[in-house]
Amino acid sequence: MTLLDDTLAAIAPLSPGAMARARDHQDRLTKPRGALGALEDVSVRLAGLAGDCPPPLPAPAALAIFAADHGVHAQGVTPWPQEVTAQMVANFLAGGAVANCFAAQVGASVTVVDVGVKTPLPEDPALVSEKVAPGTADMTRGPAMTPEQARAALEAGIRVAAELVRRGARCLVTGDMGIANTTASAALICAFTGRPAEEVTGRGTGVDDETHARKIEVVSRALALHGLTTAPRAVPGSPAGVERALATLAAVGGLEHAAIAGFVLGAAARRVPVILDGVIAGAAALVAAGLSPDALGACVAGHRSPEPGHGAALAHLGLRPLVDLELRLGEGTGGLLAHPLVCAAVRVLHEVATFDSAGVADKN
Amino acid sequence: MTLLDDTLAAIAPLSPGAMARARDHQDRLTKPRGALGALEDVSVRLAGLAGDCPPPLPAPAALAIFAADHGVHAQGVTPWPQEVTAQMVANFLAGGAVANCFAAQVGASVTVVDVGVKTPLPEDPALVSEKVAPGTADMTRGPAMTPEQARAALEAGIRVAAELVRRGARCLVTGDMGIANTTASAALICAFTGRPAEEVTGRGTGVDDETHARKIEVVSRALALHGLTTAPRAVPGSPAGVERALATLAAVGGLEHAAIAGFVLGAAARRVPVILDGVIAGAAALVAAGLSPDALGACVAGHRSPEPGHGAALAHLGLRPLVDLELRLGEGTGGLLAHPLVCAAVRVLHEVATFDSAGVADKN
Repeated sequence: MTLLDDTLAAIAPLSPGAMARARDHQDRLTKPRGALGALEDVSVRLAGLAGDCPPPLPAPAALAIFAADHGVHAQGVTPWPQEVTAQMVANFLAGGAVANCFAAQVGASVTVVDVGVKTPLPEDPALVSEKVAPGTADMTRGPAMTPEQARAALEAGIRVAAELVRRGARCLVTGDMGIANTTASAALICAFTGRPAEEVTGRGTGVDDETHARKIEVVSRALALHGLTTAPRAVPGSPAGVERALATLAAVGGLEHAAIAGFVLGAAARRVPVILDGVIAGAAALVAAGLSPDALGACVAGHRSPEPGHGAALAHLGLRPLVDLELRLGEGTGGLLAHPLVCAAVRVLHEVATFDSAGVADKN
Repeated sequence: MTLLDDTLAAIAPLSPGAMARARDHQDRLTKPRGALGALEDVSVRLAGLAGDCPPPLPAPAALAIFAADHGVHAQGVTPWPQEVTAQMVANFLAGGAVANCFAAQVGASVTVVDVGVKTPLPEDPALVSEKVAPGTADMTRGPAMTPEQARAALEAGIRVAAELVRRGARCLVTGDMGIANTTASAALICAFTGRPAEEVTGRGTGVDDETHARKIEVVSRALALHGLTTAPRAVPGSPAGVERALATLAAVGGLEHAAIAGFVLGAAARRVPVILDGVIAGAAALVAAGLSPDALGACVAGHRSPEPGHGAALAHLGLRPLVDLELRLGEGTGGLLAHPLVCAAVRVLHEVATFDSAGVADKN
């Protein structure tokens, strides 16, 4: 058995009993029934994940930023030079990025993981090296990764999740850095949802019309090359579903997508919630759900970005985003902003008085 | 000069220079331009309010929950008994309500203010007594308040804002408690926006179809009685605009609406940001903007409730809500949840590296 196989075997459904107890408890609290809207659903889901009501507070949080480069950068899908991936890794390590700022705001730790940065990175004890390859190959000319690379990056993500939980994290947050990774995300989302490239491919960090058109064409060409123009017929989590998910990931994914998918599986196997950031995490969550649909039980959609593929991925996964403020930065920034909302949702089950205990009359 | 007059005289526009500096600084930070979406706008607004870039971090926050009862309760607009207002005040003071839980989550203080609870409240040193009257009169039979009562409640809110800032609060959050107060909110929103009762009146804490129909009829009847079926023609902030805003407030508002409007004005006069909670705060902000349009510069819309009047009020005020999760509890809960987002928006201006300082290449 490999680490991936072990992890998939450890993932189980949410506990219906704990979810029912959470719903019942919500209805006895001193507030109109349902008045906390989407946060009540979050609290119920986390009770199901913990198998307990109230579930533990999902704090402290730990952000892992998985960084990697993309061979498809050669197709001119972005105005940003590829070196920016490594420069931003240095910025994360120096504490100067928005992700560092938002992590400080919510009390989360930041772990930076090199799963495939092309530019050589200076030694830094704070950088976790899980480099599988110096970036992916160009998906328009062949598979972005070999099957072995895809598995290795998945297992890197599982290891990072396990280590963060071992060190005390009670909530994981996905983060990513990789110039051109919205192109790979669009390709993954098309391949898992069956939607066409022009519906799913967005402007990423803000590309112009010409680059946007090229990006759509590049995604379409890659999907055709790899025979991924229709949605998978195999049942997610079945042997055929797992095979298709792995093949799709290797064909058009990024090393950070693979690692984030593994990170999600690792969280689900340990029954720790994982807050998904933006479109890169949404694409990775499609991979994770293809490997194990029950892994979705651990996922909270932190935010929704304006990238059209992100909305498509969340709709396909049946996840409702908590923050919706036109953030399109990545790094885990949207996921971090959602963390206090997730904590608040659970905290209600711990602290709020019931109608009986507070002597408040229920409605007649 | 009265306290209200002094406060209105102290309110000034946002600083265009500080706002321009904040926009310029956002564009030099290590992220794609505009990538923080609505949070960039919040940071620019708070720079304008402070007249400085970066503006001070808006923490700690202080929540004030203004509690009052409503004569219109006699019209059968809600299934909740009027005593629940006082019972929930006791729950706030005991720390058992959702507002207490969310305040703990974001590190905010909670101040409970009786501006017009009908049921006698036990003495409690933690309760701020600014009781103007034991609830309003029934707006379907005459004005809800006298002009003197409306002014007194406005000034109570101003005093509470001043006291919380004096004690160190750097961000205020509006809270409310008052059985039947979504009915008064709907009437205020109709009167300020000119929209008809059936578009604006919602189900509040979740009333059934019959009660909802009655609520719409009650709001329509009150608006007709007081001659408030069309939007004000007077310019907000002009002498006629101020007169109309005060007359509208007295005719169909609640004592907590008046106090929250005063609280907003008090925050604006001290150039401290104020996070608006839900539909009650939205209605109160319409009153505040009618008295002084520049007061809106201090306002951040914390969330949007599913109450249709809230969306109408926010659209009229030109405010974009930060949290949109179908919360319909009031108490300040939605405003509290927005506080970390507001802090994060400002924190970026303090902590994030620029392209130059971090040695990150800008896009070509």
